Amino acid sequence: MKNINCDILIIGAGPAGLVAASTASENYPDKKIVVVKEFEKGQVPCGIPYVFGDILGDVGKNAMPCGGEVPNITKIVDKIESVDIESKIANGKENTITFDKLIFATGSIPFVHKNFQESLRLENVFTVEKNYDEVKRLKEYLDQSDLKKIVVVGTGFIGVELAEQIKSSGKDVTVIGGGHILANSFDEDMAIKAEEIMEQKGIELALGQHASGVLEENNKATAIQLCDSTTIKADLIILATGYQPNTTLAEDAGVKLARYGGIWIDEYMRTKNKDIFAVGDCCGRRDFITRDPSKVMLASTSAAEARVAGSSLYSLKNLKGFNGTIAIFSTMIGDRAFASAGVTEQRAKKENIEYVTGYFEGINRHPGTIADASKQSVKLIAMKNSGQIIGGQVVGSKEAGEIINIIGLAIEANLTVHNIISLQVATQPLLTAAPTTYPIIKAAQNCLKQ
Amino acid sequence: MKNINCDILIIGAGPAGLVAASTASENYPDKKIVVVKEFEKGQVPCGIPYVFGDILGDVGKNAMPCGGEVPNITKIVDKIESVDIESKIANGKENTITFDKLIFATGSIPFVHKNFQESLRLENVFTVEKNYDEVKRLKEYLDQSDLKKIVVVGTGFIGVELAEQIKSSGKDVTVIGGGHILANSFDEDMAIKAEEIMEQKGIELALGQHASGVLEENNKATAIQLCDSTTIKADLIILATGYQPNTTLAEDAGVKLARYGGIWIDEYMRTKNKDIFAVGDCCGRRDFITRDPSKVMLASTSAAEARVAGSSLYSLKNLKGFNGTIAIFSTMIGDRAFASAGVTEQRAKKENIEYVTGYFEGINRHPGTIADASKQSVKLIAMKNSGQIIGGQVVGSKEAGEIINIIGLAIEANLTVHNIISLQVATQPLLTAAPTTYPIIKAAQNCLKQ
Repeated sequence: MKNINCDILIIGAGPAGLVAASTASENYPDKKIVVVKEFEKGQVPCGIPYVFGDILGDVGKNAMPCGGEVPNITKIVDKIESVDIESKIANGKENTITFDKLIFATGSIPFVHKNFQESLRLENVFTVEKNYDEVKRLKEYLDQSDLKKIVVVGTGFIGVELAEQIKSSGKDVTVIGGGHILANSFDEDMAIKAEEIMEQKGIELALGQHASGVLEENNKATAIQLCDSTTIKADLIILATGYQPNTTLAEDAGVKLARYGGIWIDEYMRTKNKDIFAVGDCCGRRDFITRDPSKVMLASTSAAEARVAGSSLYSLKNLKGFNGTIAIFSTMIGDRAFASAGVTEQRAKKENIEYVTGYFEGINRHPGTIADASKQSVKLIAMKNSGQIIGGQVVGSKEAGEIINIIGLAIEANLTVHNIISLQVATQPLLTAAPTTYPIIKAAQNCLKQ
Repeated sequence: MKNINCDILIIGAGPAGLVAASTASENYPDKKIVVVKEFEKGQVPCGIPYVFGDILGDVGKNAMPCGGEVPNITKIVDKIESVDIESKIANGKENTITFDKLIFATGSIPFVHKNFQESLRLENVFTVEKNYDEVKRLKEYLDQSDLKKIVVVGTGFIGVELAEQIKSSGKDVTVIGGGHILANSFDEDMAIKAEEIMEQKGIELALGQHASGVLEENNKATAIQLCDSTTIKADLIILATGYQPNTTLAEDAGVKLARYGGIWIDEYMRTKNKDIFAVGDCCGRRDFITRDPSKVMLASTSAAEARVAGSSLYSLKNLKGFNGTIAIFSTMIGDRAFASAGVTEQRAKKENIEYVTGYFEGINRHPGTIADASKQSVKLIAMKNSGQIIGGQVVGSKEAGEIINIIGLAIEANLTVHNIISLQVATQPLLTAAPTTYPIIKAAQNCLKQ
């Protein structure tokens, strides 16, 4: 057992932990910072699906960058087994660490519905864990040539991305989900565009009912069963049914949890104890717009939280740093980018928000005769009275991944469709839509017609 | 002579005129709108350079879209020769038009320094005019196979884009300018990256001194002379030395001009007469940040102004619609996008602004092993005290064309680097930088270190 003293202890070295460490280091260059990670090798979380197709094709290519050497940050590999909040001591398997400030960045673990928990013991039923060894194990299992039929349960980003990558590697893939794919982020009109691309690629979509259980034989899953008792044959089942905050360590330490899971935190990422912080997926998050508990888990959100925590450890520097997650996502399906921020129309309806929508479909270059020109659609959702923008969805070429960040900024800055209609944008023939038909502005104009 | 009566008369059918018309039509569906254009065929202004290389390669491919038929908009081809503001009559060559509201959208014409005006009579000295016939004339002249050495005077966007396109068509090209290329939009550190690419492509850059005159023989230019008396041989000279507001018609009608040129307008694009508006390049613009007169001419700015005018004709609907140009540009040089918004560091210095800068260079995909990953640099300029963002420059792959629009929105919304550090962005392996190193956020963090 080794004794270590530090000022700031960070448990976890995913995006949240690493950004918390670098931000703390910049804000408090004289403090000694220790980051404890459970495994030597990390994975870029959102890169994991791409390990299974041609894009990365290898677990090693998805390694988490270590971020270089920083004088006041020490990284150690250990598993912290308990934390004593009162006496400020963390007990690992190999180290006892005393600290002044503690940041939990323990991330999330796969969520598995109770109907499926028992089947996890089967050798061909996997979840998508975010560590090197587990990703490698799944990759090696998948690489077996006699493995033909793969079933992915779950239609979130990981499920959809994984399905496309596995299909591209030559296997048969079926995706199972209760409704349209990516339903938390896209309305039906946009989701259908994504489903069409997946079907063109030959991916089977079994949508409209949930999976109810796994059929097995000789300790191996053979098929998945749907609610209506249909079965779908499977040589391998991947449960991509979301993640849940990894809070065991914090809970055991007596840290208050949020009502619907995750560590309770305020806008500065502080727990009820002002020396103890939490950042990333282990937190109990709130939705920026509805203020309801949010299950959105995103490395980019975690990084934003970590920047707030890392600069608020010894004093508050910015008012209400983190004001809830705006749920801002993007992905590629085929050669099209799909991106979403804020609430969908469907969700606005469900939450009883008085909203208007605006839609515009145009071309991402101008004139449209430019060789790589392609369609670009933007949908905006705004508060009916004030015109404040509360959601947006974009489908287009790769630049859609940044167009959604314009909409995200508009949401976070409480801008209205009135602000957007006179927005000045850079437009260029080879890079963007025309100045006369810039899609966010046209969608905002469309909102005003209602 | 034909007599036409209308409610809203718009003179000019460039981006400003067309957007003013469509906005007015949406806001006032019961009004009769007439748009007068001087030429039947228009050109997409910022597409013009691409007519001269492979990208469009043809004047016809750069045609201005007509925007479809709208019931209450009539387009006529005529040249308006005078306007009587008091009696609200515009006199064309073929039509006499009475109106209630008038919008000048007469655009801009090439600016030619007095040393060069006389040489415009030579058959091989051209400016870059924004109409179909003139672009075609230049294109045909350039297509002569015995024409080898082309000199472009001017290092703004049009000069630089034109030089690259002409070079790609197999001619020798020399670009002449007094300082670094694109010096109004990029600081030296960024401009140098662009110059390197141009030189790699074999374009000669004669920077550091201005052109002083044209040498001629038999009514043809043979060379251009620099201030230090060096001469550079030329088979064709293109003067891309900027544009000036086309205000003759308005001036003759007694409309007040701004002190440094352009039609004087308020924040609602109204002249001193509340029934007479002006939009686009013919206006006297102000800079969003310094409030000084601005010479920036951009179709996207014109479109923003036109949206304000088009909705403010009969009553004001939005407070101070147009608050000055933020000068937001983008272009491609080689396979790199260069984009800029707001003030450069150099300009901030000159304007005696107390500023800080932040710079970050990263990768536009994550992990960096993704096949199309490339470098991405962002520079931010912010007010030293408040941290308000007043400028930004981006160099990267095509998505840089939209990243600059995030920075533009931050400038227009008066956001600070403090707002940006906890900004939530969508990040995705195939589309964007990593959540831990999103370049705008990292550049903002860098600003805070100073």
